[in-house]
Amino acid sequence: MTDRPHNNTEWNRRTFLKVGMAGIGLTGAAIALKQLSQVNSKARVIIPPLPSDAAMASGINPMAVLRDFDYGTIKQENGRQIREFRIIADNSTLQLNSAVTFNTWNFNNRVPGPTLRAKEGDRIRVLFLNQGGHSHSMHFHGFHRSEMDGVKPVRHGAATVYEFDAEPFGVHLYHCHTEPVTRHIGKGLYGMFIIDPPKSRPPADEMVLMMAGYDIDDDRHNELYAFNGLPDYYMMHPIPIYQNQLIRLYLLNMIEFDVAATFHLHANMFQVYPTGRTLKPTEETDVITMGTAERHILEFSFRYPGKYMFHPHQDYIAEAGCMGVFDVIERNA
Amino acid sequence: MTDRPHNNTEWNRRTFLKVGMAGIGLTGAAIALKQLSQVNSKARVIIPPLPSDAAMASGINPMAVLRDFDYGTIKQENGRQIREFRIIADNSTLQLNSAVTFNTWNFNNRVPGPTLRAKEGDRIRVLFLNQGGHSHSMHFHGFHRSEMDGVKPVRHGAATVYEFDAEPFGVHLYHCHTEPVTRHIGKGLYGMFIIDPPKSRPPADEMVLMMAGYDIDDDRHNELYAFNGLPDYYMMHPIPIYQNQLIRLYLLNMIEFDVAATFHLHANMFQVYPTGRTLKPTEETDVITMGTAERHILEFSFRYPGKYMFHPHQDYIAEAGCMGVFDVIERNA
Amino acid sequence: MTDRPHNNTEWNRRTFLKVGMAGIGLTGAAIALKQLSQVNSKARVIIPPLPSDAAMASGINPMAVLRDFDYGTIKQENGRQIREFRIIADNSTLQLNSAVTFNTWNFNNRVPGPTLRAKEGDRIRVLFLNQGGHSHSMHFHGFHRSEMDGVKPVRHGAATVYEFDAEPFGVHLYHCHTEPVTRHIGKGLYGMFIIDPPKSRPPADEMVLMMAGYDIDDDRHNELYAFNGLPDYYMMHPIPIYQNQLIRLYLLNMIEFDVAATFHLHANMFQVYPTGRTLKPTEETDVITMGTAERHILEFSFRYPGKYMFHPHQDYIAEAGCMGVFDVIERNA
Ligand SMILES: [Cu+2]
Ligand SMILES: [Cu+2]
Ligand SMILES: [Cu+2]
Repeated sequence: MTDRPHNNTEWNRRTFLKVGMAGIGLTGAAIALKQLSQVNSKARVIIPPLPSDAAMASGINPMAVLRDFDYGTIKQENGRQIREFRIIADNSTLQLNSAVTFNTWNFNNRVPGPTLRAKEGDRIRVLFLNQGGHSHSMHFHGFHRSEMDGVKPVRHGAATVYEFDAEPFGVHLYHCHTEPVTRHIGKGLYGMFIIDPPKSRPPADEMVLMMAGYDIDDDRHNELYAFNGLPDYYMMHPIPIYQNQLIRLYLLNMIEFDVAATFHLHANMFQVYPTGRTLKPTEETDVITMGTAERHILEFSFRYPGKYMFHPHQDYIAEAGCMGVFDVIERNA
Repeated sequence: MTDRPHNNTEWNRRTFLKVGMAGIGLTGAAIALKQLSQVNSKARVIIPPLPSDAAMASGINPMAVLRDFDYGTIKQENGRQIREFRIIADNSTLQLNSAVTFNTWNFNNRVPGPTLRAKEGDRIRVLFLNQGGHSHSMHFHGFHRSEMDGVKPVRHGAATVYEFDAEPFGVHLYHCHTEPVTRHIGKGLYGMFIIDPPKSRPPADEMVLMMAGYDIDDDRHNELYAFNGLPDYYMMHPIPIYQNQLIRLYLLNMIEFDVAATFHLHANMFQVYPTGRTLKPTEETDVITMGTAERHILEFSFRYPGKYMFHPHQDYIAEAGCMGVFDVIERNA
Repeated sequence: MTDRPHNNTEWNRRTFLKVGMAGIGLTGAAIALKQLSQVNSKARVIIPPLPSDAAMASGINPMAVLRDFDYGTIKQENGRQIREFRIIADNSTLQLNSAVTFNTWNFNNRVPGPTLRAKEGDRIRVLFLNQGGHSHSMHFHGFHRSEMDGVKPVRHGAATVYEFDAEPFGVHLYHCHTEPVTRHIGKGLYGMFIIDPPKSRPPADEMVLMMAGYDIDDDRHNELYAFNGLPDYYMMHPIPIYQNQLIRLYLLNMIEFDVAATFHLHANMFQVYPTGRTLKPTEETDVITMGTAERHILEFSFRYPGKYMFHPHQDYIAEAGCMGVFDVIERNA
C-alpha cells in the first residue's frame, strides 16, 4: 500500500537501530497490512482499471496516488492495537513538465506524501527518519499532546516517533513544521491523514486530490500548480470513474502564497462534509472556497458518461497546472 | 426582456440560416416572452421607479441589468416545453470611467451577459452564435451531458446549440471556457443563470449583482472592479429600494486574479442561501467570503430609510470601483 | 476597563464642552463600570495570572488587550438605560519590532481599538472625538440608521455622537470609514464590537484575537502581521490558559490587501459560531477561512497541558508575525 519498495521490517531494524531508537519497542515481524475500508465497505464498489500509461518514470505517479491509502502496519502491544507508519524525509528531483525540473523535499519519495489512514481511536505510531539534508518534522492536524505536535525540528540523520490516538474522525493533513514553513511545504513535505469514523461511511469509489503550488524561482509566488504533484497530469491522463457510482473525494488545499483556492466540478454538484467532521453533508454546490490547509470530503456521482473537467475557479491557478478531467465510463446504475 | 433591440424572429432566420443552423427546428414566430416570477410571485412587490439618469450611452446600463431577467422564448416541441435563449458573442468598447476605455468581449452586447432564468426541469436551448473575432464558447454550471459542457471552442462566425434540462435549482453562472479562461472571462464573457425552484420563492424585490475585475493593462492584476459592469456606477446612481420590503439579491463573484472577495452590506444583516441550493437560509451575517465563481442568494430588508453602502470588505477592491449604495425609500411596512 | 488612564468625567466636561457637544446631555459623574459577563456568567471560570513581563512600554499590551472588554458607562435617561463609550482618534508611534517603528492612527491610543461590549437591546452612545490630524469616523457593523453609519468623515478637532440600539447579538467590528479605507484601517483604526445575546453564553475564559497587517512601506502589501497589534508578541509571551476549561475566542480578520486568512489551532479542533450569530455551533474544524472583516466565535478546550501554536495557515502571513502560542496549564477537570 505504501509505495516504498523495501521491506518494512528491514527498515525498522537497520535504520532505527542505527539511529538509536531501539528502545521504543519495535520488535517482531510486521503484521500484514489490512485495508479497513476495502474489507468493510467497498464490497459493491468497482474501480475502473487504470490507464496503461499511468506509470511514470519521475517517481511520482498521480494515478497511483489517487487511490493509494497507507493503512500502516498493525501491531499488538500490552493488549492494545497500534497502527504503525514509517516515514522517511528525503530529497528527489521531479520533472514538472518538459521544461521544469524541481528539487523536492518529500516524505517517502512522493509529493504529496503517503495518504495515511486509520480508524478513530486507533493508536497511531509514526516512525520518522530524516534523511533530507535539512531539519524537518511532521506536524499532524487532529488531537494530540504538545510533545507530539511536530513543531520541533528533527536534524538530518536523526529520527523520532510521533504517537497519539487517531482523533477525531475527519480529513486531516500532516506537513513539515520547520521554519520557514512556506518553503518546507512548498518543496513537497505534506500529505493527507484520513481518520475514518467508527462506523464506516457508505461504499464509494474513494480518491484523494491535493492541490499545491510550485514556487520555481523562489520569488514567493507559485509559477506552477498541480493536483497530486504533477501539473496537468490528469488533463493528459483523465481519471476513469464509473457512471452512477458514488465518488468520495478527499480534497486538500495545500497551496502556499495564494491565500485560497476554490474547487469546481463541471456539469455536476457535490455534497460537502466540512473537514470530514460530519456524517451528513451540510451543503451542496459546485464551487467551494478553501483556504490553505482546509480540506473536505466531497461526494458526487455522474449521470452521463463522458469527460468532465475539475479545477479551481481561480482560472490563473487552473491554467498553470491545477486542472484535471474525470472520464466517466458508461455503466448501468 | 433581453436588451437586444432587434426582432428575435429576424435574428433566427437571417443569422442562423446564414451559418447553417437551419436544421435545428427554429420555425414560426417567437412566442411571447413570459416572466414567470412576475406572474407567480411578485404580486405584492413594488419596484421603485428607476432614476431618470439611469440610461447610459455606453451600451451598458447597470440600473437595467439589476432587475433584467431573460426568460427566453417558450416553444412546444413533441409535447415538451422548450425555453430558448439566443446569445451572440461580440465585441464592444466600454467607457469604464472618464479616463479608461476597455475593449470588451461580451454576450449580447452587455457586460455582464444577460441573466438567463428558468424553472427547474425546463428544457433549455441556447442558440449560440460567435461573432466575436476569437473562438468562444458557453460553459454553464449545473447538470448536463459532457457534450453540452461548452468547453469546446466555437470559431468566429460559427454557431452551436447547447441543450439541457435546467437542474438543479439555484444560482448558477455561464461563461466562456476558451483558454485562457482568465482572459475570456476578464474581457466580459460571463453572466448569471438562475434556476427557480419548482415552488417559487416568496415574493421579493429581486435583483442581480455580479462583481468583476478589469485588467486594463494585461498584467494579470485588476486595476478596476465593478458591480454589473461599470465601476462606481451604483455610487453615482444609488439603487432605489423600499423600506421594509424583502430584497432578494442574486450575487456572483466573477473576479479573476484575486482569489476571493467578500460582500458586505452596511447597517444590516443578510440571510444566506448558499449557491441558492436551499429554500431556507443557513447563515446570517453582514460579510461573506466568496471565491471566484461562488454565488449565493442573500435576503434582507432595511428598517430605516436612507443611503447604505455595499462593497467587498477587501477595501482595495471596493476603492477601485466595486462599491455601491442602496437608497432606501420610506414606506410603511 | 478601558485603558485610558484619565478620568472619564474630566474628559467629558473639558473635551466635549470645548468642541461644542455640551447639548447632548452628558451630566453627572460616570456610573461605575459594570462587567456584565463577569457578574453573570464567569462565576466558575478562573483566569490564569498574566505573565509579569506582559506590560510593555510601547503603549500596546496585547496581553491586556486579550481579555479587556470595555462595557462603557451606564446611564439612565428618560427611563432608559444608555451604555456610553468615549473614543478619541489619535496618533502614536508603535515599535513593531527591533527594526520597525510604525506611525499608527488609533482609537483610544491602542491598536486595535478597545473591545466595546454590550448586551443585545442596550442603547449605545459613542462619543467620538477626532484628535488624529486627519478626518476620521467610526463605522459600526450591526443594525442602525443611515445617519449613524459613520461613513461621514469627522474633521480633526471635531466630535460627533453615534447612537443606536445594540443589535443583533454577535461579534461585530467598528473601523474608520474615511477614504481610503485601506489606509485608515491599515494604520490601526479598527476594533471589535461584541453584542452579547439576551441570555448569556455559558461560562468560559473569553478572549479576543484580531488579525491585522502592517503595510510599512506604503506599497499596498503588508510586510508585517500581528494578533492584537504586535507582531510575534504571543510567540514571545504565550497566552496562559487552563487545561480542560472552555475558551471562547472572539476572532476578527482585519487584514487589508490579502483577501483572506485562515485561523488554525494546533492539536485541537474548535466549534464555530459564524459571526457569533448562533447560540449553537454550526461546524467543527481546525482551519477556517475568513475574508477581511469576517469574525467568528470559536470555542475549544485543551485536554493536555503544554504549548500549542495558533496562526493563519497562510504560512507567509504567520511567518511575518501573525503567530502565537497558548500555554496550557495543568489543572484537573
Ligand atoms: Cu521541513
Ligand atoms: Cu471566450
Ligand atoms: Cu480614518
